[in-house]
Amino acid sequence: MRQRKLILVTNDDGFQSQGIAQLAELMMPLGEVIIVAPEGGRSGTACSVSSTTTVRLTELSPRGDARVVSCSGTPVDCVKLALERVCPRQPDLVVSGINHGDNASISVHYSGTIGAVIEACMKGIPAIGYSLRTREKHCDFSPYANVIVRVAEHVLENGLPVDVCLNVNFPEVERLAGVRVARLARGKWSAEWASAHHPRGENHFWLTGYYTNLEPEATDTDYWALDQGYAAITPLKLDMTAHECLAALTGLNQDFPRERCNPQRS
Amino acid sequence: MRQRKLILVTNDDGFQSQGIAQLAELMMPLGEVIIVAPEGGRSGTACSVSSTTTVRLTELSPRGDARVVSCSGTPVDCVKLALERVCPRQPDLVVSGINHGDNASISVHYSGTIGAVIEACMKGIPAIGYSLRTREKHCDFSPYANVIVRVAEHVLENGLPVDVCLNVNFPEVERLAGVRVARLARGKWSAEWASAHHPRGENHFWLTGYYTNLEPEATDTDYWALDQGYAAITPLKLDMTAHECLAALTGLNQDFPRERCNPQRS
Repeated sequence: MRQRKLILVTNDDGFQSQGIAQLAELMMPLGEVIIVAPEGGRSGTACSVSSTTTVRLTELSPRGDARVVSCSGTPVDCVKLALERVCPRQPDLVVSGINHGDNASISVHYSGTIGAVIEACMKGIPAIGYSLRTREKHCDFSPYANVIVRVAEHVLENGLPVDVCLNVNFPEVERLAGVRVARLARGKWSAEWASAHHPRGENHFWLTGYYTNLEPEATDTDYWALDQGYAAITPLKLDMTAHECLAALTGLNQDFPRERCNPQRS
Repeated sequence: MRQRKLILVTNDDGFQSQGIAQLAELMMPLGEVIIVAPEGGRSGTACSVSSTTTVRLTELSPRGDARVVSCSGTPVDCVKLALERVCPRQPDLVVSGINHGDNASISVHYSGTIGAVIEACMKGIPAIGYSLRTREKHCDFSPYANVIVRVAEHVLENGLPVDVCLNVNFPEVERLAGVRVARLARGKWSAEWASAHHPRGENHFWLTGYYTNLEPEATDTDYWALDQGYAAITPLKLDMTAHECLAALTGLNQDFPRERCNPQRS
């Protein structure tokens, strides 16, 4: 008898967010669902782990057939703990989101949603992050349901290449124009700090800022796709090596024969 | 008159760590040094940012000619705030470290040391992370001084390609065997949680675990270089797109013509 597929659902907005409730519900027809998600908001926590504090798991009331476990740590902690201490077997798929806010372009580096996806990918599990370009806490996810489910089905059926995961971003539209497989746009955040006036007059700051797409003319980027009303699907890889730069740097190997590496002994 | 080079020094172990003191001292002959570093340890904070709390800067006593500013946030916050609120002009170089612990292989994703480097790279500034494979808080950095300075000089003279930064890791040795420009090894962390027995008996866990090099035979990886006593220099790139997978996925574009993306209206 074939076992049902096991799907781990997590996010960085916390177990109580609307996005994860929607995502878990959409996954339920595809297999057994377990939700392990942060106790509260963990936006911008990237791939961070709790290295100096303990992390607590709390079993909550199930949603339908799905177990729900909250975690005091980061999204990456959620995935690491789910795999070792919660899931009865290795999941067939890890999905993260639906994030309230897009994770396109360089935002992948800051995103806790994507952090969880990268962690699952490191563990050899196909993983997908879903994010919606919105600033709202309450939003209508129904325009994206078909794509969310179909992409998850595609990955359950076909898997993903080794060390590759998917980043799916949606524009906030009533009707999607379609789907575009796209690369990450080059981008930049600017004017990132607002002064926060503390009564004692110390130097306190709030993170803010605006994003600039550095490739506004390119039609193969995730930002372009979102701007045109498409869902953007980007494969991400674990290997951050700039392979194309290795050859140019190898001169450094010769710069440092053993005797020049080490300080002179007098 | 040519202005002196400006070098921003940061880390994830905190401004009081031995590694950053060493790194700042090594940079001083190369230009004007400004230290902006976390108030305390921020290991494992990756590219995380403080999105829900304010961040505080505190001007401390200078070290020699170098300003020292501590920051209550993450290493990425340090770089972002340094660039907007501390540095008198854009730095010519950002260096991060010397981290107590290596940041080779997949550890780049978790590393706050590398988070700061990636942030600087996003801002178009040449950036280098330095890390030492050690578990000690007090260690002798003198075997690495020549390489640290020479790599920084090389980058100050030649710059780095757009959206590329350097990750330099040292083995804990008395005499380096040399330098190897190397790619990131594929690796895996396992058995990552120890139970922490809380008096109230809740489910608390400590992050721990062991690393496995998944490519022990490969001689072109950073792990191999470190194991052989070499310093490993790896160019990292911002673009995490798995370009080689884009073509295979484009079938999804056709899977989702506009009418199939959107739910049926009844």
